[in-house]
Amino acid sequence: MKRVIAVIGGRRVKKGLLLMAEDVGRLIAERGAVLLCGGLGGIMEASAKGAKDAGGLTLGVLPQDDKGHANPFIDIPVATGLGIGRNVIIARTADAFVAIGGQYGTLSEIAFSLQLKKPVIGIETWDIDGVIRAETPEDAVRKIFDNLKYKSVL
Amino acid sequence: MKRVIAVIGGRRVKKGLLLMAEDVGRLIAERGAVLLCGGLGGIMEASAKGAKDAGGLTLGVLPQDDKGHANPFIDIPVATGLGIGRNVIIARTADAFVAIGGQYGTLSEIAFSLQLKKPVIGIETWDIDGVIRAETPEDAVRKIFDNLKYKSVL
Amino acid sequence: MKRVIAVIGGRRVKKGLLLMAEDVGRLIAERGAVLLCGGLGGIMEASAKGAKDAGGLTLGVLPQDDKGHANPFIDIPVATGLGIGRNVIIARTADAFVAIGGQYGTLSEIAFSLQLKKPVIGIETWDIDGVIRAETPEDAVRKIFDNLKYKSVL
Amino acid sequence: MKRVIAVIGGRRVKKGLLLMAEDVGRLIAERGAVLLCGGLGGIMEASAKGAKDAGGLTLGVLPQDDKGHANPFIDIPVATGLGIGRNVIIARTADAFVAIGGQYGTLSEIAFSLQLKKPVIGIETWDIDGVIRAETPEDAVRKIFDNLKYKSVL
Repeated sequence: MKRVIAVIGGRRVKKGLLLMAEDVGRLIAERGAVLLCGGLGGIMEASAKGAKDAGGLTLGVLPQDDKGHANPFIDIPVATGLGIGRNVIIARTADAFVAIGGQYGTLSEIAFSLQLKKPVIGIETWDIDGVIRAETPEDAVRKIFDNLKYKSVL
Repeated sequence: MKRVIAVIGGRRVKKGLLLMAEDVGRLIAERGAVLLCGGLGGIMEASAKGAKDAGGLTLGVLPQDDKGHANPFIDIPVATGLGIGRNVIIARTADAFVAIGGQYGTLSEIAFSLQLKKPVIGIETWDIDGVIRAETPEDAVRKIFDNLKYKSVL
Repeated sequence: MKRVIAVIGGRRVKKGLLLMAEDVGRLIAERGAVLLCGGLGGIMEASAKGAKDAGGLTLGVLPQDDKGHANPFIDIPVATGLGIGRNVIIARTADAFVAIGGQYGTLSEIAFSLQLKKPVIGIETWDIDGVIRAETPEDAVRKIFDNLKYKSVL
Repeated sequence: MKRVIAVIGGRRVKKGLLLMAEDVGRLIAERGAVLLCGGLGGIMEASAKGAKDAGGLTLGVLPQDDKGHANPFIDIPVATGLGIGRNVIIARTADAFVAIGGQYGTLSEIAFSLQLKKPVIGIETWDIDGVIRAETPEDAVRKIFDNLKYKSVL
C-alpha cells in the first residue's frame, strides 16, 4: 500500500501560497508518497503540479461526478459527485495533511482530519487546536513524516 | 415546505449545555419549525427531547446505516450510512443552525454551514469568524429567526 | 419512530403509472406511514401528491444540494448533494419500497433495497429476483404491510 | 489522465470466476490502464492480483472508513466510509466496467454504470438490458477497449 499525503487549501489564494504548495507537492513526491488533493484549481493544482514535476503520482478527489473537472496535473481523478462532502473522503484516505491558506472548505477538511486523529500541518491557515504549524514547505514535509505513525511501505 | 432548524453539538457535554439544548429544541418547535439533529446522544438527544415535549416534529440524520441507532426522541431517522460525512447533509438540509459546545465534529458542521452561507448561532462553541454568538436559548432562537432570509411557510 | 414507506420510480413514465403512484401514496398516508420518495417529478411527485391529499407527511431525499429542487408536495426535503448516490440513503431510510416503472435509477434503488433485505413490491417494473409483484395500488400497499417485520409504532 | 477500468463482482463466487477475474485484471494492466475495484475480497481481490502480477497500478474504492480493510493487492485504497454507497463513486470514476458474477451489490453497480452511459461488459452476471456479454477474459477486455469512446491517453 502506498503512502498518501494530502495537500488541502482553497482555489483563490495569493501567489506566495501557490509557490509553497508547489514546493510541498514536489517534496512529497520526492519522498515517494502519492500526492492527494481535491483535484481542482489553486492550492490543489499547484501541489499536483509540484508532484508531477518531481515524477510523482497524483490523485484528485473531485466534488463533481465527471472526471473532466480535474486539473491537468491529476493522474487519477476520483469523481465522487459528493460536492463538498468529498472532503470527508480526502480525510479518510490520506495518511497526513498539509493545509495551506484556505477558507471554510479547508476548515471542514481540517476538522475531519483532526477528528480522525491524523496529523495536520498548517501553513498560514486556520488556527485550530491540534494543527501543527509550519513556516516553510521543507518544515511542513519534515513534520508530516515525523508525525506519521507507521513506517513507509515504499 | 416546512422550515427546518438544526441543533448541532457533541455527545459528551456538561449538564448545563444539555439543558440549554433542550430549551433550544423546545423553542424551535414552538415556532413551528422541524427540529433537525444528528440523531444520536448528548446535545442531539437533548434538543430532540425539547422539541418533542413541545409537540414538535424531529428529524435525525444519522451516521449509521441502520435507523435503530436513533435516540428515542427522533420521529424520522434518516439512515445515511455516511459516518461523519452525514454532517454535510445536515448543513444542506437545515435553514439555520444552533451550535452548542462541541468538538471537531461540530467544527466540521459549522464550517460546512458557513460555506453554504447559512446562519449559524453559537452557544459556548468554536470561535469561528461568521458564527453569531448567543448567550441563552431564547437569544439563540430569536437570532435564528431574525437571520432567516425567507419568511416561514408554516 | 414513524414508519416510513418509499415509492420509487422514474421521472418520465406513462400516465397510467402516475395515477397508480398517486393511489399508492394516498394509501400509504391513510395507513399512517410517512411517504418517502426522491423528491423530484414523475412517480416521485405523483406519490407525494397522493400522500398529501390524504393528509400525510412527505419526505423527499433529493440528489441536489439545494432544497429548492423538491416538488411542491414535499413537506421536508433532505438535500443530500449526492446525485444518484442518494438512492442508497433512500434504501437505508425506508422500511419498505414500492417500485413503479422506472429505468436504471430505479434498478439501482431496487438492488440496494434487496441487498439490505427489505421488502420491495413492484408494479410494472424491473423483473428482478426478490421483487414481489403487485397488480394494483391496493395490492401493493397490502403486500408492503404484510411484509413488514416489525409492528407499526404509530 | 490515466485510463481507469473497473472490475466488479461479489466476494463469494466460484473458483472459475475468480480465475477469470485474475485474467481480466492482468489484461487490463497489460493495456496500461489502472485497475479499479471495490478493494475487498473475491472478484475484487482476484482482479487486483492479476493487475499487480502484470506490473499494473491498482485502486480500491472501499466501503469502510479505514484503509486497513483493503486486500493486499491494492496500491491506493480510497476509504470512502460510504458503505455500499461507494458503488456510485466506482461508477463515476471508471471509464468502463467488467462485471463478473455478483449479487445485488453488483446489480446496483451495473445499474449506476449504465445510467451514466458507460460500457459494461458482463461475464456470467445479471442479464440486464445494456450489458454487453463476453465469454472469456480476452473477449471482455477486447470489448471494453472497443467500446471506449475516447482514445487512451497513455
